[in-house]
Amino acid sequence: MAAVSIKKIPIKKVNYLEFTDTTDALAIEEPLEIRLEYGPEKDRKVQNVSVTMRTPGNDAELATGFLFTEGVIKSQVEIANADYCFIACAENKENVIQISLVPDAIPNLHNTERNFYTTSSCGVCGKGSINAIRTVSTFTPKKSDQIVINAELLYDLPVVLQQHQAVFADTGALHASALFNLKGELQLVREDVGRHNALDKLIGASLNNDQLPLDNSILLLSGRASFELIQKAAMAGIQIVASVGAPSSLAVELAEEFNITLIGFLRNNRFNIYTAAHRILLPAYEVTN
Amino acid sequence: MAAVSIKKIPIKKVNYLEFTDTTDALAIEEPLEIRLEYGPEKDRKVQNVSVTMRTPGNDAELATGFLFTEGVIKSQVEIANADYCFIACAENKENVIQISLVPDAIPNLHNTERNFYTTSSCGVCGKGSINAIRTVSTFTPKKSDQIVINAELLYDLPVVLQQHQAVFADTGALHASALFNLKGELQLVREDVGRHNALDKLIGASLNNDQLPLDNSILLLSGRASFELIQKAAMAGIQIVASVGAPSSLAVELAEEFNITLIGFLRNNRFNIYTAAHRILLPAYEVTN
Repeated sequence: MAAVSIKKIPIKKVNYLEFTDTTDALAIEEPLEIRLEYGPEKDRKVQNVSVTMRTPGNDAELATGFLFTEGVIKSQVEIANADYCFIACAENKENVIQISLVPDAIPNLHNTERNFYTTSSCGVCGKGSINAIRTVSTFTPKKSDQIVINAELLYDLPVVLQQHQAVFADTGALHASALFNLKGELQLVREDVGRHNALDKLIGASLNNDQLPLDNSILLLSGRASFELIQKAAMAGIQIVASVGAPSSLAVELAEEFNITLIGFLRNNRFNIYTAAHRILLPAYEVTN
Repeated sequence: MAAVSIKKIPIKKVNYLEFTDTTDALAIEEPLEIRLEYGPEKDRKVQNVSVTMRTPGNDAELATGFLFTEGVIKSQVEIANADYCFIACAENKENVIQISLVPDAIPNLHNTERNFYTTSSCGVCGKGSINAIRTVSTFTPKKSDQIVINAELLYDLPVVLQQHQAVFADTGALHASALFNLKGELQLVREDVGRHNALDKLIGASLNNDQLPLDNSILLLSGRASFELIQKAAMAGIQIVASVGAPSSLAVELAEEFNITLIGFLRNNRFNIYTAAHRILLPAYEVTN
């Protein structure tokens, strides 16, 4: 992936009272069209499902993860093939990926026709957006479970992620999603200019490896935790999400509804627990506010 | 705006070996449906154009800016009214905004039906995405102009923005777009959980005030410069864009095509110039690399 993710260009670097002519590495951003081929053998249909601006690399994972986290497909067994659109599209084939479903798979394209957020009868509101996810989610939120991790285990995760963020180090421009096991060992990292794409790549890879639900993993987000990212985590059955940045109000509400432990501002040996704190073994010392 | 942009909730704050029960302020994220009413008086149509996750506040500006930067409308004179959907939508009316066009305005809804990026005959590629913007842009890129600013003027902009980012200070969660004049004086700031929304709000407000093209302004972005943000800047005729974070490859290509001066990593008295460096008066000392 690293080879096609970076482009070097000449720039002027200005440093207070000096300047230099030098080169800089940019993270590549290119459109990716996701096409879906489906239907019985005698009546196959091809539909453009989405176009997203992404960093090239792991495109089949991105498309697979997108279809799954948007509720279009329910399982990897529905996928017969996922590849660049070599035959139909002579030009720019590296920017068109086609997911072909097995003949008896019936995709839920309702969500892609209108927006996910407005499928609820309640209209356009946060509550409706959360309900819409519940209706398509494969993994029902659990009310109780046995997963517990030490607070201290979390402190190292951003440090480990940073060591593995190859493209970010060169460009300063990529978001990352990372999966850790409950011992804090890194399992998988994906990077992209779009934070939702990084997570779709990660979940798509996990789906391809038949690893869902990811209920024994910690998801680390390099930036902020928005509704969309918690939506995708919920769809993948993830129960612990830690973000380096801040969560939004609706991200917290969704995490609460899906019994996801949501951690924010994880950096410099600190973090906040927003929801489902029972999975975190707190430090011994309680400071009264 | 500040009143409805924040929600306080109880959290557990963990600091190395201690923890505290306290409260935290979250940036509010809620869906906004943008509806467009258009057509001759006897045959008015209403269409759902988009649903975006945004921070409530300046919603009419957001919708106006979105329609303009996506090429659906060409000018503010096409807008007859912009308001929450009080009559048609009893529930959640604060999350549905309706822009009503004057009877003889003909919206370009082609871009909203499929994605902006795929309207070009060249197929799905970066070049096609750039061409698509050229076809709908109101302001033709100029090949030459007289705008020049001192490098030193730029150093203060992020500091000034931070002083004015009211909601970010409380939540650490909001992106901002800010307009400065060529003396470096702050003209306008808009914040949102979505960086594209912050910029749409800013451009929508400027459009309402009949200030477009913004060719005598500096646009400051609190985060990274993606293609989508440079697209919106280009649509508004902005000629100098400075971002605190990194630009993407396609953002740089689009800036190059539209003769926009693109600056990245503007912080701590440093920055990089990626395109159209002729508008920046460089410091006196050139350091040979």
